[in-house]
Amino acid sequence: MNGKELSPAEIRSLIRQGQWNGPTTGLASGFVQANLVILPKAHAFDFLLFCVRNPKPCPILDVLEPGNTEPSIAPGADLRTDLPKYRIYEQGTLAREVENIRDVFKEDMVSFLLGCSFSFEKALMEAGIPVRNIEEGKNVSMYITNRPCIPAGAFSCPLVVSMRPMQPGDAIRASQVTTRFHLTHGAPVHLGAPHEIGIKDLDRPDFGDPVTIHSNEIPVFWACGVTSQMAVVSAALPLVITHSPGHMFISDLKDEQMTLF
Amino acid sequence: MNGKELSPAEIRSLIRQGQWNGPTTGLASGFVQANLVILPKAHAFDFLLFCVRNPKPCPILDVLEPGNTEPSIAPGADLRTDLPKYRIYEQGTLAREVENIRDVFKEDMVSFLLGCSFSFEKALMEAGIPVRNIEEGKNVSMYITNRPCIPAGAFSCPLVVSMRPMQPGDAIRASQVTTRFHLTHGAPVHLGAPHEIGIKDLDRPDFGDPVTIHSNEIPVFWACGVTSQMAVVSAALPLVITHSPGHMFISDLKDEQMTLF
Repeated sequence: MNGKELSPAEIRSLIRQGQWNGPTTGLASGFVQANLVILPKAHAFDFLLFCVRNPKPCPILDVLEPGNTEPSIAPGADLRTDLPKYRIYEQGTLAREVENIRDVFKEDMVSFLLGCSFSFEKALMEAGIPVRNIEEGKNVSMYITNRPCIPAGAFSCPLVVSMRPMQPGDAIRASQVTTRFHLTHGAPVHLGAPHEIGIKDLDRPDFGDPVTIHSNEIPVFWACGVTSQMAVVSAALPLVITHSPGHMFISDLKDEQMTLF
Repeated sequence: MNGKELSPAEIRSLIRQGQWNGPTTGLASGFVQANLVILPKAHAFDFLLFCVRNPKPCPILDVLEPGNTEPSIAPGADLRTDLPKYRIYEQGTLAREVENIRDVFKEDMVSFLLGCSFSFEKALMEAGIPVRNIEEGKNVSMYITNRPCIPAGAFSCPLVVSMRPMQPGDAIRASQVTTRFHLTHGAPVHLGAPHEIGIKDLDRPDFGDPVTIHSNEIPVFWACGVTSQMAVVSAALPLVITHSPGHMFISDLKDEQMTLF
């Protein structure tokens, strides 16, 4: 399908009807996509607190009342059916992947939608800054750092970062551009000196693909939404539902609606 | 005392020893002061959600684990003793004011510290923008608007705003300056046209004092921390503790440490 031209509601409808189960990258261009985490109400305060304490990796776009599946940032949507693929975790272990969670979602569960990096990558490209992973058609390189997130309750994990190589002047401009997007990870958390944050080999990311780094470029690191997945697994709850990597929730919010200024 | 020169820890120590029970305005210049809300853990998720959904009136500086009274933004401090005056609400009604809460605080209670406007008023003055309430030695004018906050659980109330009159050019500059201070209410929520947000008479604020408005000035409105107090009262919980108006918690965080850029 030509998903770039369809509206978020149209794409969610196709997904709901089982007509699209692939990644959402590039779909509904200009609209905010989100990471999904669903967990039992008994742990919702601690997880919300984890997100509040770690806003760069876990920026909160929407939190729903227990049992509710219609986000305020996408009226008419249903989080049980409108993502192409979900992961079910039991006791902190990936149990299975499914295409809807109609039979799994329970009334006592709370859904969190967290910002992802798609919005700011688009802003970088519009500012004329090359984004290597997109140029090379790869997943962004992601690394587990030696920096701990601030824990909350049972949720505790290191910060995960994504990396984009850039020329130093572009790195400065990228810091300015992404500052505006504080709900999709905001400004970088680090640049240059990967060993300072515990990264030994840029060519061997913990998640995603390695990308080409030219000799006149430095690595620029942003907080990454995968951190929320690691936090959720760390708590080893009886049941947690997330999106599958790359298979995000597409909201009705335009990228420019969630900039700070 | 010459509180402007003392460190936050020194002032908290004087307050703890009962040697200061007045307002904290102007004390520890350059350090962030905070609104305090303490409530039972059973309602903590809903109140945290209320703050997340309404970040302009209720910007979160710190949320403590249940039973903890030492904020991360002020190591060594004790929220039971280090504010000059507290209010105790029972079933949504003000029951009494006290100078410490040693006997009231319980292990199942969660403490929230929320940003207040002192930091950005200092930034406005440093930018050469007159702040009328400070010039006239008055409390800022505050109004209950016709704009509802997004409710969460039992917490539901209208947005409360503070008003500072300014010349239009200063209003634009003030919007820029306060945007940086997103954890102390950020940019204005409204300017000019007070009737549009339900304010009938600027000379009759719902809280605080009226201030002089010159004929070449327009009213500029910021989201106000009093909103969090109204939210708490709206829920009519068995027990809630807050600071007394003007008697804030003084943190170790410098104003410039919590700017966004």
